[in-house]
Amino acid sequence: MVIELAENYGFCFGVKRAIKIAEENKDSATYGPLIHNSKEIARLDKDFNVGLIEDFKSFKAGDTAIVRTHGIVKDELEQLHKSGINVIDATCPFVTKPQEIAQEMSEEGYDVVIFGDAAHPEIKGVQSYATHGAIVVTDVEDVKKLKFKEKIALISQTTRKVEDYLAIANYLVPRYKEVRVFNTICNATFDNQLAVRDISEISDVMIIIGGKNSSNTKQLFNIAKEKCSDSYHIEDENEIDYSWFEGKERCGVSAGASTPDWIIKNVINAIEKRVN
Amino acid sequence: MVIELAENYGFCFGVKRAIKIAEENKDSATYGPLIHNSKEIARLDKDFNVGLIEDFKSFKAGDTAIVRTHGIVKDELEQLHKSGINVIDATCPFVTKPQEIAQEMSEEGYDVVIFGDAAHPEIKGVQSYATHGAIVVTDVEDVKKLKFKEKIALISQTTRKVEDYLAIANYLVPRYKEVRVFNTICNATFDNQLAVRDISEISDVMIIIGGKNSSNTKQLFNIAKEKCSDSYHIEDENEIDYSWFEGKERCGVSAGASTPDWIIKNVINAIEKRVN
Repeated sequence: MVIELAENYGFCFGVKRAIKIAEENKDSATYGPLIHNSKEIARLDKDFNVGLIEDFKSFKAGDTAIVRTHGIVKDELEQLHKSGINVIDATCPFVTKPQEIAQEMSEEGYDVVIFGDAAHPEIKGVQSYATHGAIVVTDVEDVKKLKFKEKIALISQTTRKVEDYLAIANYLVPRYKEVRVFNTICNATFDNQLAVRDISEISDVMIIIGGKNSSNTKQLFNIAKEKCSDSYHIEDENEIDYSWFEGKERCGVSAGASTPDWIIKNVINAIEKRVN
Repeated sequence: MVIELAENYGFCFGVKRAIKIAEENKDSATYGPLIHNSKEIARLDKDFNVGLIEDFKSFKAGDTAIVRTHGIVKDELEQLHKSGINVIDATCPFVTKPQEIAQEMSEEGYDVVIFGDAAHPEIKGVQSYATHGAIVVTDVEDVKKLKFKEKIALISQTTRKVEDYLAIANYLVPRYKEVRVFNTICNATFDNQLAVRDISEISDVMIIIGGKNSSNTKQLFNIAKEKCSDSYHIEDENEIDYSWFEGKERCGVSAGASTPDWIIKNVINAIEKRVN
């Protein structure tokens, strides 16, 4: 069986940057998981003593707190700063941007509509920057239930599928005076999505590696599944069921933006060893 | 044969307003055709002595010049004002709006993209307001050949099909940081388009009445043709070929935004008389 990696996969700019920041700040702690990959977080803890604090009130003056790639809620960031904590911001710049847009557009009087998962830390963060509030929608059906004023600013979670984003824009444009569509889907996401679509078309089994709570990995899996019905989302090699590969000729592999190369290598090595 | 009018058709707010302005300004002249309907223009000339001047330099100080519904080029409007001419502006407010947007967006540093017909007076006017220039595109294929900076302001000719406008937005959104989509398609156009689509689906012959140079009438005809292959675009009852109705059961009728009711009535009466 041929095992082939997608043309673009895995770690994005923001994740690489955050891990470098964490490695450079030994004996600190991240507020919430730095990235959505528990294995990599365990490695940072073991090798660099970078811990994980889930409640920001647990930080004490003098502590070093690393802000996760997904960003945090505006008030909490301000609280950390005020509390004499040494704040190191590892928010991905592609997430800082929609935070800024949400604030600016809200202050300019636009109805701010965020396409994403309201429970995801990135979206909780972005939403918190909209001074006069923002509405989070998960799909075009959500939007159909809403009424806005004349002008809408549309922001997307960085990891969303562009087609779903366009569906929302296409619903709004004919119905409102102005729809200001910000392309806040990050390029890495976009490139990984394009590449997984391509490879899924020529594969008869697809393996998508990444955290089960990783939004962008889930999107990759959904895209793979559309083109290749035998697609599987795993966190690491321990989740592989080798019967998946019986009678298959081409196995495509991709990985989410928070999946480190060492996990990807472990998965490929495991498949190679047992199947080929 | 049943003859049925579309639920929305004919004169729009801007045309009604312009005709009222013309009727209230006897012994004046419009600069260019007030609306795209030569029969109605002839009526204004005959009944109100409102003439038609094609070259704005022919106006003399003290003359009354009526600016057409489609608007005119910014420089020419300024010239008319400077020349001591009494300028009465019958530009449709739905056209003034995209003129203002073109100017504002251009001055704010957006690449201004206008979807429309570069040769149409409305678009010549709107384009002239973009201080640093604007690009006119007729379809998404035109857009694919172009490169822009980061931020694009998208404006549509008032009479365009919204689906074609969305195709352009959908091409641009994934490729640029911000696409500010202004819904400058006028409601009357939109309502007439929706209504002609509905009636075309249940008609076996469609008659679309309006000037051959009327952009919105041409769009209505294109939509009708998609749903009903026996669709015809006529200016008045003299262009009817009665063989069109042989063996037909339902005739749908619509008319462009510049088609007066008296022409529509003449057409329906003529069909009624000969066919039923």
